[in-house]
Amino acid sequence: MQELYNKILTESVVLNPDTLKVDSFLNHQIDPAFILKIGGEIADRFIKDSLTKILTVESSGIAVALAAGLSLGIPVVFAKKKRPDANIESVYSSNIFSFARQEETRITVDKSYLGPQDTVLIVDDFLAHGEALQGLVAIVRQAGAKLAGAGIVIEKTFQQGGTKLRSEGIRIESLASIESMEPGVIRFS
Amino acid sequence: MQELYNKILTESVVLNPDTLKVDSFLNHQIDPAFILKIGGEIADRFIKDSLTKILTVESSGIAVALAAGLSLGIPVVFAKKKRPDANIESVYSSNIFSFARQEETRITVDKSYLGPQDTVLIVDDFLAHGEALQGLVAIVRQAGAKLAGAGIVIEKTFQQGGTKLRSEGIRIESLASIESMEPGVIRFS
Repeated sequence: MQELYNKILTESVVLNPDTLKVDSFLNHQIDPAFILKIGGEIADRFIKDSLTKILTVESSGIAVALAAGLSLGIPVVFAKKKRPDANIESVYSSNIFSFARQEETRITVDKSYLGPQDTVLIVDDFLAHGEALQGLVAIVRQAGAKLAGAGIVIEKTFQQGGTKLRSEGIRIESLASIESMEPGVIRFS
Repeated sequence: MQELYNKILTESVVLNPDTLKVDSFLNHQIDPAFILKIGGEIADRFIKDSLTKILTVESSGIAVALAAGLSLGIPVVFAKKKRPDANIESVYSSNIFSFARQEETRITVDKSYLGPQDTVLIVDDFLAHGEALQGLVAIVRQAGAKLAGAGIVIEKTFQQGGTKLRSEGIRIESLASIESMEPGVIRFS
């Protein structure tokens, strides 16, 4: 998706060898019309999958997931982080480790919003080490739902999340795949 | 907005005298087409204000803010909670107390995304004690931006946030105002 490549090349900042900052259009400020296109592109790649739900995790995945949900006309569920009032019996849950924050977080989804009748598309902004995506996959499995795959805005293929999850048979569609990055030089796969 | 009233009456749960759970359409699961209408309604109320930015705070405000941003064709900025990598000199910040979680949280906005040239609409899902809204107002003022007002999905008028902020001259437009609630009985203003 050329417009996404252009945004990454002109607006992103390589903070360190592992971290790409895309705050100007994805993680802090959002360009609504652009996000709508991104969501539409993800939706198009799964248009034949008879999806019933989109699943993401707060916070940065919400905008893209909503855009995909608008395109597909299906509900969006966002997993909550560290929900203090979660009744353990009423939720699916998973622990994910954030490399960026160096901390483990529990994510939960209320059982009311996912079940065996669902076919789920997971949507997220980034795929790097794959911790968040693995946590969301675990929740889809706990729900007994069918997993159609995952739609990702930016995958960093030099980290191993995508490789690992694809080897488990999970379909992953990434709109931009970065194979290497250093300040001023970003290479797409 | 009748559709919003209907959703609140049929789908919300009064968890306790202070807390209304609207997880099925706003805070955990999102109905994209409905959220688009909600955002459009908020946008309509500020259509004459020459807005340049929408400001919200992660996580539950993001979807509604994006919907309003789509309608108005302007960028959405979401304040970050407890941002670990925030360089204090590069951000506006404010501390907000969450009554629901009984904890104080620091919210930040990178200075790149708000400035004196901006006219800002604050958007959020709920207005109760007004702590989040006050924190966002403080950030708009730190930026030297013009504040057009705040668009809120659900205001609980029996809590004092709206009264306090309106007395300071802030324009607040709430799509649904709840004057009292108990299990099974919700009264709108």
